[in-house]
Amino acid sequence: TGTVALGGKDDYEEEKKQHAADHGSKPSVDNGSGNKDEKGIASYWGVGPTKLTKEDGTQWKWTCFRPWETYKADVSIDLNKHHVPTTFLDKMAYWTVKSLRWPTDLFFQRRYGCRAMMLETVAAVPGMVGGMLLHCKSLRRFEHSGGWIKALLEEAENERMHLMTFMEVAKPKWYERALVVTVQGVFFNAYMLGYLLSPKFAHRMVGYLEEEAIHSYTEFLKELDKGNIENVPAPAIAIDYWQLPPNSTLRDVVTVVRADEAHHRDVNHFASDIHYHGHQLKESPAPIGYH
Amino acid sequence: TGTVALGGKDDYEEEKKQHAADHGSKPSVDNGSGNKDEKGIASYWGVGPTKLTKEDGTQWKWTCFRPWETYKADVSIDLNKHHVPTTFLDKMAYWTVKSLRWPTDLFFQRRYGCRAMMLETVAAVPGMVGGMLLHCKSLRRFEHSGGWIKALLEEAENERMHLMTFMEVAKPKWYERALVVTVQGVFFNAYMLGYLLSPKFAHRMVGYLEEEAIHSYTEFLKELDKGNIENVPAPAIAIDYWQLPPNSTLRDVVTVVRADEAHHRDVNHFASDIHYHGHQLKESPAPIGYH
Ligand SMILES: [Fe+2]
Ligand SMILES: [Fe+2]
Ligand SMILES: [Fe+2]
Ligand SMILES: [Fe+2]
Repeated sequence: TGTVALGGKDDYEEEKKQHAADHGSKPSVDNGSGNKDEKGIASYWGVGPTKLTKEDGTQWKWTCFRPWETYKADVSIDLNKHHVPTTFLDKMAYWTVKSLRWPTDLFFQRRYGCRAMMLETVAAVPGMVGGMLLHCKSLRRFEHSGGWIKALLEEAENERMHLMTFMEVAKPKWYERALVVTVQGVFFNAYMLGYLLSPKFAHRMVGYLEEEAIHSYTEFLKELDKGNIENVPAPAIAIDYWQLPPNSTLRDVVTVVRADEAHHRDVNHFASDIHYHGHQLKESPAPIGYH
Repeated sequence: TGTVALGGKDDYEEEKKQHAADHGSKPSVDNGSGNKDEKGIASYWGVGPTKLTKEDGTQWKWTCFRPWETYKADVSIDLNKHHVPTTFLDKMAYWTVKSLRWPTDLFFQRRYGCRAMMLETVAAVPGMVGGMLLHCKSLRRFEHSGGWIKALLEEAENERMHLMTFMEVAKPKWYERALVVTVQGVFFNAYMLGYLLSPKFAHRMVGYLEEEAIHSYTEFLKELDKGNIENVPAPAIAIDYWQLPPNSTLRDVVTVVRADEAHHRDVNHFASDIHYHGHQLKESPAPIGYH
């Protein structure tokens, strides 16, 4: 199996081809992880993993994301953009989110690391639900999606990476794990029902949730600056995912995560606006790779 | 808004950045599609679409997929690989698929174009269900996925592209549309239940479904060669998605689609094998971008 240095997407394409060719002929996989059984079956099915190398020559250590999915966050995004609720549905979405904030503030108080970790488990649900429903609709109606399936699934993926990052900073306790299971069960189904009844409402609500997320990450930054939360080194996964310099800190991580949330805000308010104008999402090209 | 020629991923990254910068400063989007309302709101939220250009200078006309998601199918893949069912669960999966084939053959007979179109609406379900369930599990358990969420979602996406392609060749009739709605409703829930009860069984079943898909695309090719089905020019979407030469025909399209199915077969039998060996998917890196 060849080894490949970090480079453009084309290099990886080459590597994948090479890799496929290797495994067509000889049944040995050198993946440096997993166990002997899996190596054997991966090799039989020709799906052994590619050995990737970072720019500095060290091995790429993540299997949940690959070098070509990493990016530099656009931290210049306007954090204060806000959709002023005018219609009844908008106001309902706005007040739903505001009323959810009160118990959240009460529960977490100033433990922003813990708060971030817990809320990201919820934040990754709407994108997956929306993407899944649009995918099924596209199949049922023999219709193109305009890229919205991918855009929403990318949002879900991005939120999951937020969780994978904050997990490294705050470890969940047993009762927090139990809480997540319950909240996910309720929220997944509630959001799916909401999306089926009114995607306009569902996307607006997510837009407002993201506005709150921006606010709470700004508070997180303030606590870091005051010294109330220790500005620990950035987790390795965050450095690789957001292409951060090696000496980055938690403060840098929170800053790029906040920029991501601002991008999600834009995408979801935009989606709601499309519905508001009486159109379907597929009529307006989706912002794929918007971060 | 700038215009970008087809190139490596880096060029697109540049373009995206440039695009984002443009829209931070001036509120005008030139997307060449959509309507005036959407242009206004897209510009407000800074999510206006990028104008992409193909290598030959013509405009990229698809919003449901982007140039960097296209690929050349590896048609050298072994089409005859088969997992011999040994365990009870394997046999159950095998006979479930075999018994589903009988009514399918009866219904479609030799109308392979129609058959392909209808079956792809079903084929795109398992990847989405599996990806969605693994995503939720990853969130609930604060665990990495090993890339399996993405691998399964990629499969769903790829199957949806098969549908978008065959839609251009065979138009669904009203009763076929009605059938798809019913079948999707049943299959989505049945597969989800199956996956929750036994991912080992679910992936094995998909592995066998893909083996049948390879068989039926081989029959499709035979009918094309015999002249029983007209070898029409390849749809434009297929030429762009699989990077086919401009003069490609339906025969070329069926050949690359069949190669895709062989890749799905490998991924799903591999996933089932991992479970068979008592491991979890996340323990073995997923074959991302395997096609
Ligand atoms: Fe987030
Ligand atoms: Fe978010
Ligand atoms: Fe397919
Ligand atoms: Fe398939």
